[in-house]
Amino acid sequence: MNEQPKIAVLGGGSWATAIVKMLTENLNTVGWYMRNAAAIDHIKRNHHNPKYLSSAEFNPTQLDLTKDINKIVAKYDILIFAIPSAFLVSELEKLTKPLKGKIIFSAIKGIVPETGLIVGEHFHKNYDVPLENIGVITGPCHAEEVAMERLSYLTIACQNQENAKLMSKSLKSWYIKTKISDDIIGAEYASMLKNIYAVAAGIAHGLGYGDNFQAVLMSNGIREMKRFIKKVHKMKRNINNSAYLGDLLVTGYSLFSRNRQFGNMIGKGYTVKSAQMEMSMIAEGYYATKSAFKMKEENGANTPIIDAVFNVLYNNKDAKKEFKKLTNKLD
Amino acid sequence: MNEQPKIAVLGGGSWATAIVKMLTENLNTVGWYMRNAAAIDHIKRNHHNPKYLSSAEFNPTQLDLTKDINKIVAKYDILIFAIPSAFLVSELEKLTKPLKGKIIFSAIKGIVPETGLIVGEHFHKNYDVPLENIGVITGPCHAEEVAMERLSYLTIACQNQENAKLMSKSLKSWYIKTKISDDIIGAEYASMLKNIYAVAAGIAHGLGYGDNFQAVLMSNGIREMKRFIKKVHKMKRNINNSAYLGDLLVTGYSLFSRNRQFGNMIGKGYTVKSAQMEMSMIAEGYYATKSAFKMKEENGANTPIIDAVFNVLYNNKDAKKEFKKLTNKLD
Repeated sequence: MNEQPKIAVLGGGSWATAIVKMLTENLNTVGWYMRNAAAIDHIKRNHHNPKYLSSAEFNPTQLDLTKDINKIVAKYDILIFAIPSAFLVSELEKLTKPLKGKIIFSAIKGIVPETGLIVGEHFHKNYDVPLENIGVITGPCHAEEVAMERLSYLTIACQNQENAKLMSKSLKSWYIKTKISDDIIGAEYASMLKNIYAVAAGIAHGLGYGDNFQAVLMSNGIREMKRFIKKVHKMKRNINNSAYLGDLLVTGYSLFSRNRQFGNMIGKGYTVKSAQMEMSMIAEGYYATKSAFKMKEENGANTPIIDAVFNVLYNNKDAKKEFKKLTNKLD
Repeated sequence: MNEQPKIAVLGGGSWATAIVKMLTENLNTVGWYMRNAAAIDHIKRNHHNPKYLSSAEFNPTQLDLTKDINKIVAKYDILIFAIPSAFLVSELEKLTKPLKGKIIFSAIKGIVPETGLIVGEHFHKNYDVPLENIGVITGPCHAEEVAMERLSYLTIACQNQENAKLMSKSLKSWYIKTKISDDIIGAEYASMLKNIYAVAAGIAHGLGYGDNFQAVLMSNGIREMKRFIKKVHKMKRNINNSAYLGDLLVTGYSLFSRNRQFGNMIGKGYTVKSAQMEMSMIAEGYYATKSAFKMKEENGANTPIIDAVFNVLYNNKDAKKEFKKLTNKLD
């Protein structure tokens, strides 16, 4: 690239770190905001993020690290948000600079808990970012495998296909293949819903269901996802593309997925509160379940899996009984 | 059931044993043919199959065991074949009784190597069994989980829906749910093709590809399967139903799948011959690949995954190079 795009990543977790790594394959300088000053120092000194994805090595001269979110927003044209959705609102409250003129990509797999909006909508409604300047980066992609430089495929969705192409070009490398899409709404909802199905897979596993049932759950899950997304935003899409089915599978079959782990604890008898305390964090799927259930009440989609997870997490229903009822609704 | 259907299972392996177990939940007597006389004695004395699925316990008074295939065919109206496809022809050569008046269900996940036909077609063309009396029993279902009485879902496909219902009623129990379908061709091809994708998943794993790629492979696999089956038998079917997608997932994600193990050895550098000798058996996916490749040459389906597996297994192509090429055709 002759003139390189000015791209920054916001977030200090595994996925943010993986995205920075992908960008450093193409860009001389990548902006990187994280709130943890000690982690920034560690990266500068030791060339890797101390707590997250620490096997990914960086050349610090390529990184423009700062704990000042406003500096990043002022300096960079394209901002990739990879902050857990639970912290997005509090991070954005620090902003004194407008986001209006920026191109925003969301790499957040969830819903903004305070507003119940998917991330793209949150930026559009609350920060006046035009829809054509909002995009989504989606998997199937475990950050850990990016660190290992194992071949992974990303889908970059944006209404404005030029923005999608630019992001695609900035992320791809010998171990990253990219595909562009104009289905930003579908990609975001798939990203959010898959976490609920991963929680469901975890609950089922915790209750003692096996691989045969897991395959049935995923097969019903993708059909349910299709019905849900169709109600939200009807367009021609192949739900079996990697951004939807692939993303569901990589999460639903991953033993490392925090959502699956959270579900597994619930299935084994932990209360929601004790599972959250044990994990010292809140799985994205927890919030996603509440929002998705509310939405399906409004749009009338038939979603037996989301309903069962909602009843277990929010209505204090017994997981064993609720999943037994669910098994009669699947086929 | 007042008058119980006269059902027999032919085969002595894990899947045959699992089906016998399911039937004993409903029937007073189940016919069971296997060629191994020592195994029959063992079952009678010790109440379980010695080599396959030995954790499944039987009440021998419920079993009508014999090593005489003609006795079974004479005595039973409904015959469930669960013999590995590689041995089907030689077993059928023992027949002196006609199959014409029988109802035949195939629980064989493969292609008859000698004729390149799916099992239903083989019985129809070579034994004059009318199509309405031919059915298929399909998963997603590991036999091992049936032995453990873990909830599993079967699809029973038959043109004649009365036959499907009868079989469905005979197999279902508190741990087996059944669904009927009229898509016998689709169910058989899905059953066969999934083994090729499991070989592909194994090769990829053996070559060092990770979970991100596996999700992409399965997402492309189900789309490829849809294209292939549509060319063979076009009808309205939801490829994401459990009999197609579920069956693909349970096999493709299983570390115990013989097809995946076979592929894994190929990916790690074994020759086809040494992998087969090491496994002391031939994976169904090996034959399926040859037949599927031949069929797609005729019907023109776009099948990059089948092509790559074919080139590795039959054209002596280097797995690493072939899969590198394949990665550029997936998305």
